[in-house]
Amino acid sequence: MCQLLAMNSFDPMTINFSFTGFCARGGLTGEHSHGWGIAFFEEEGCRVFIDSQASIHSPVAEFIKQYPIKSRNVIAHVRKATKGKIALKNCHPFTRELWGRYWAFAHNGTLTDFTPKLSGRFTPVGDTDSEAAFCYLLEKLHAYFPLASDRNPPPIKELYAALQTFTAEITQHGTFNFILSSGEVLFAHCSNNLHYVTRRFPFSTARLVDCDMSIDFSQHNRKTDAIAVIATQPLTSNELWTAFKPGELLMFQQGEPTHIL
Amino acid sequence: MCQLLAMNSFDPMTINFSFTGFCARGGLTGEHSHGWGIAFFEEEGCRVFIDSQASIHSPVAEFIKQYPIKSRNVIAHVRKATKGKIALKNCHPFTRELWGRYWAFAHNGTLTDFTPKLSGRFTPVGDTDSEAAFCYLLEKLHAYFPLASDRNPPPIKELYAALQTFTAEITQHGTFNFILSSGEVLFAHCSNNLHYVTRRFPFSTARLVDCDMSIDFSQHNRKTDAIAVIATQPLTSNELWTAFKPGELLMFQQGEPTHIL
Repeated sequence: MCQLLAMNSFDPMTINFSFTGFCARGGLTGEHSHGWGIAFFEEEGCRVFIDSQASIHSPVAEFIKQYPIKSRNVIAHVRKATKGKIALKNCHPFTRELWGRYWAFAHNGTLTDFTPKLSGRFTPVGDTDSEAAFCYLLEKLHAYFPLASDRNPPPIKELYAALQTFTAEITQHGTFNFILSSGEVLFAHCSNNLHYVTRRFPFSTARLVDCDMSIDFSQHNRKTDAIAVIATQPLTSNELWTAFKPGELLMFQQGEPTHIL
Repeated sequence: MCQLLAMNSFDPMTINFSFTGFCARGGLTGEHSHGWGIAFFEEEGCRVFIDSQASIHSPVAEFIKQYPIKSRNVIAHVRKATKGKIALKNCHPFTRELWGRYWAFAHNGTLTDFTPKLSGRFTPVGDTDSEAAFCYLLEKLHAYFPLASDRNPPPIKELYAALQTFTAEITQHGTFNFILSSGEVLFAHCSNNLHYVTRRFPFSTARLVDCDMSIDFSQHNRKTDAIAVIATQPLTSNELWTAFKPGELLMFQQGEPTHIL
């Protein structure tokens, strides 16, 4: 099993505070010490930092905790290996390009008897069930929207509906909490364990549960800011985190969850 | 125009010394200040650090200069924008997955009237001629080896020959110095400006031309080590750098160039 962290916001924001608490779960307050990773979308660009070391011992993680990168969509992961050895190739988030956009994906849970037949359009490089599920999801989306391209991406509602169908199929193989984004919106699916909080005006002070650190968001944010933070388990002790319902797929846009019917 | 740096070695090696000199070209000793990037292969895994800031001002570059990452295949780039705006999405190296391996690519030069018809198998995310050329190369390779897969990759000699054909086609559009690797071997093509040096026993002291720094490789390497470093312009003043011939495509394996006939 692993843990997930994600952020979706109205304006580009840093995630240093949340990432600092999250990192502690990679070997200190949690046993997820088999690698970690974080993907930052900056417009269409995407940069991913991954490391097979435990996040609490990783100099790259230490750097990322301190260095402010502003992004509207962030996906992070600390890994406890269940399938696939400890190696860089098995660190989440995984990325692929589809329709001229980068897609990033991270997964928490274990899928059993999941050996999807893949056409070769997206092939796993590592040997995790997670990367196989990501490739399968993208392959299904690619086949479902045969006319889509960089100039003609699928309408977001149709994308959501398709994703829901393919996700339901994969969940038959086990626990499939995941985060997926192509830099525009951010999808979060809960099988059994995922929470989110939305931060907006009036901003208050938040205190991390994994380390002795607080932040007064009113000092860092403007009235119009809106930020959603998603995590396997709540990261702060004094904010109202909402538990996802089992089977729920939420789409986050501009810092808010969108319930699409 | 831009500048290229690459390394191919017998055993995993660090590139901190060469990268330190190379970085100075991103705004100090060279005018390539529109972003930079570096890709490290670690077995099948690949991690890429990219930044749209000048390498001499980038905290990420500063971190990479100090932090030792051991790799057999490294590709780095400092950018001077000619086509495509200054943005993360336009920073080299670009990566894609093909046949279950990550491929990384960086380019120096400018291609004109180069608007290849792409099928959608690989689509540029940014707006550089370089990323278009990379997508075109991969698309041609993908089509040329229709039966290839992660379990059945093309023989390396056939891959080289195919790459040479497609490269020759692209060079008709302009200057196409590039580095390409999928983590096994490293391909380097010269249109007009590329050099390499091979370091092996007995190792000597090397002095950077771009900053006041020397290293005694005999203190850091074993008898069996072999390292090839490739750069647009020689990085050191007291080593024997070999200039590529115009039109030459070299394949580096285990720290040595291989001339395939």
